[in-house]
Amino acid sequence: MTVPAQNGIPPPAKLQDRSKLIPFSPRLEEGRALAEDVWSIFNAANLPDDCINLGQGYMNFGPPKWVTAAANEALQAVGPNHYSHPKGRPRLRQAIKDFYEPSFGRELDINSEILVTSGANEGCYSVFVAFLDHGDEVIMFEPFFDQYLPSVTFNGGKPVYVPLHPPTNVDKPTSKDWTIDFDELRRAITPRTKMIIINTPHNPVGKVFTKQELEKIAVIAEEHNLLVMADEVYDCLVFDDNEHVRFATLPGMWDRTVTAMSAGKAFSATGWRVGWLVGPPSIIMPTLAASTRIVFCTNSPLQEAVAAGLEQAKTRGFFEQQTKEYLERRATIVSAFDKLGIKYTQPEGAYFIMLDISGIKIPDNYPFPASLNGRGRDFKACWFMATHEDIKVSTIPVSEFYCDEHCNIGENYVRVSFCKDNDTMKAAGERFQGLKKFLTL
Amino acid sequence: MTVPAQNGIPPPAKLQDRSKLIPFSPRLEEGRALAEDVWSIFNAANLPDDCINLGQGYMNFGPPKWVTAAANEALQAVGPNHYSHPKGRPRLRQAIKDFYEPSFGRELDINSEILVTSGANEGCYSVFVAFLDHGDEVIMFEPFFDQYLPSVTFNGGKPVYVPLHPPTNVDKPTSKDWTIDFDELRRAITPRTKMIIINTPHNPVGKVFTKQELEKIAVIAEEHNLLVMADEVYDCLVFDDNEHVRFATLPGMWDRTVTAMSAGKAFSATGWRVGWLVGPPSIIMPTLAASTRIVFCTNSPLQEAVAAGLEQAKTRGFFEQQTKEYLERRATIVSAFDKLGIKYTQPEGAYFIMLDISGIKIPDNYPFPASLNGRGRDFKACWFMATHEDIKVSTIPVSEFYCDEHCNIGENYVRVSFCKDNDTMKAAGERFQGLKKFLTL
Repeated sequence: MTVPAQNGIPPPAKLQDRSKLIPFSPRLEEGRALAEDVWSIFNAANLPDDCINLGQGYMNFGPPKWVTAAANEALQAVGPNHYSHPKGRPRLRQAIKDFYEPSFGRELDINSEILVTSGANEGCYSVFVAFLDHGDEVIMFEPFFDQYLPSVTFNGGKPVYVPLHPPTNVDKPTSKDWTIDFDELRRAITPRTKMIIINTPHNPVGKVFTKQELEKIAVIAEEHNLLVMADEVYDCLVFDDNEHVRFATLPGMWDRTVTAMSAGKAFSATGWRVGWLVGPPSIIMPTLAASTRIVFCTNSPLQEAVAAGLEQAKTRGFFEQQTKEYLERRATIVSAFDKLGIKYTQPEGAYFIMLDISGIKIPDNYPFPASLNGRGRDFKACWFMATHEDIKVSTIPVSEFYCDEHCNIGENYVRVSFCKDNDTMKAAGERFQGLKKFLTL
Repeated sequence: MTVPAQNGIPPPAKLQDRSKLIPFSPRLEEGRALAEDVWSIFNAANLPDDCINLGQGYMNFGPPKWVTAAANEALQAVGPNHYSHPKGRPRLRQAIKDFYEPSFGRELDINSEILVTSGANEGCYSVFVAFLDHGDEVIMFEPFFDQYLPSVTFNGGKPVYVPLHPPTNVDKPTSKDWTIDFDELRRAITPRTKMIIINTPHNPVGKVFTKQELEKIAVIAEEHNLLVMADEVYDCLVFDDNEHVRFATLPGMWDRTVTAMSAGKAFSATGWRVGWLVGPPSIIMPTLAASTRIVFCTNSPLQEAVAAGLEQAKTRGFFEQQTKEYLERRATIVSAFDKLGIKYTQPEGAYFIMLDISGIKIPDNYPFPASLNGRGRDFKACWFMATHEDIKVSTIPVSEFYCDEHCNIGENYVRVSFCKDNDTMKAAGERFQGLKKFLTL
């Protein structure tokens, strides 16, 4: 669920001269909805043509052929070219039920506990529409997925930020070393707190929240009667011996938790816009009422294909194989970082690495575009690495995913995606060696 | 853009016991968002298995093979399986530009005047998000497309209804005979009026608004500085000698008009969820800011296919051929109505017929389900025709598309869709003859 600006098209920057005829809604002036975002600034069109793109979180490979074949089969029929039920196609809901019941540890009712959405993004947006009232506060951990912020404010909500704290004095940090200060979390709660968003595995940190961490959050959710949005779109990518714990499976949490998942992440099809929510009827049914008005339904032929994907994934050993491939890509890029001698956070899940850029000495007088004025040193480091002729690898600055007050925490990091084939990761690793002469450590 | 409830799945009726833990947003309690809607009541699952479905507005045939072939080609590539630019894929925006420039009578800028959306439905929703502030009033003509109502109230708007007046004392009425009372329209304007929605060709009336009618609306829009949503999703289906006039082409109207269009209607692919908006940057760019947060982008492979559709439509004579086929379907069903001797409105566009059910005498003691309690006689007529063993054709009651105050206007009509192949229309026409003995005229 990252937000690329592609294809050389300018971003939605200067939207409107307010003296023009029809004023837009004040809700657009909140939540950075009109700001030039990081995806626009680091748009491939603004960077050298031969830059290797490890910025945006989409793959340079497509979905498995047996999944696209199912899409084509659906296209040849009549029904799967027409409206789906707003809840999602029955075949896909059945496939979701069959695939996910073990990980939820319960039976799932396809009529009231599963909702197919137009990407996890629209699913989360619909939850905000269905549950937020004016002034309701929504807690999100920083760095946060940047779509949350305007999606909350568009619906009258108020984001409240709690940072994950980066590792300090750790020789070889992993995403486990990004920690929650639970006193800080408790202090963020007010009588208006309505919801908390938990993103595990976490984008961009790669953190797979531990059972102990989730249990502590559960105590707080119970105590303050919070709705929990468990954004688990990277649940199919957990590495090493880490265990992905679904928040909804903690004792007492099912009734207050909606879990978001994504075919884009699961099947390398970020452009299919098929996601799903799982939760109790008390959350799914109001969200359906919202989603039905927002999109009416999700595209039908690709729902059929995703159903085939989930139906066959297990017997094909698809997710095991996919995880192995991502492990190889991760190994390729981190070995390049090790060789270079730059610090980074080894991720336990998802497909991002937090690269510590605090040791990079950017040459004086290096030219930066005006769009970087007032931005943190992570923006400058990204620009430098993407444009310097000895490097030319694009990444994404992390301070963008913090509120203004906390953005200094993110300034030491850039996000490196490893959702590209291993040859690309190798080439990028070699390019990164060009940083050697700019490292002060 | 009609709203079927398919596949035998129960509707989003009883959403929540309010004593449950997490209350949903008060916005769901407005705009009929939680009511059992007409699509649920007349769901095929509730009707006889062998009922002919002329209720919901989707086809019983698929998109052209050369369009689905383009979808499959996109699926075989890498890029078209991943995120599109939130504005839409460049190829599709270029195809929209090339196809529609003549009908808009102006050059269209693909970077700021065209926005691809996840169906016209999501496009319209995004306009409401982008432009409505609390208490803003939105004028819609009745009968209205039922998605407008909650889409407006979800975003703080207040719907204001102006009825189209049905023909009176006309022997063979056409949709031209459904008229606007312009004094009534003027009386509906207040200082809080922000927007007016014009749906032409009109669902369900089939009315193609005349240039004169649109000019009168334009004067009012100018005078009161209104944003105009021109829902022209049926623009490719205009019959006889009628001319579809784009509201945006009237003098001075471009700057205040956003036009919504639909691949679902154009290419018999209601389940593809690809639509587009055309308008000035001052409307498109704020709407993009909204749409980017709501869905991020629209599904990529089917955008490529729709691009191919628009690119080739002209040389293939596709829309001319399609219109001919719809004319044949219309002729089939209206000749059945003529034979039966029942009144109806001959539509100038779209694929619906307003059947006048005022002359049907429903037998005393005919059994109706509890869901019809308190509903108008059009609901009862629909149920009767869908379930009586001599008829069994399903249609949609029209009072659903009126506000409570005006719903008596709609009670004399049911909507008959003719977006089914001609054989189905013939079979339905024969079934309708079973009504003969129940007609009092």
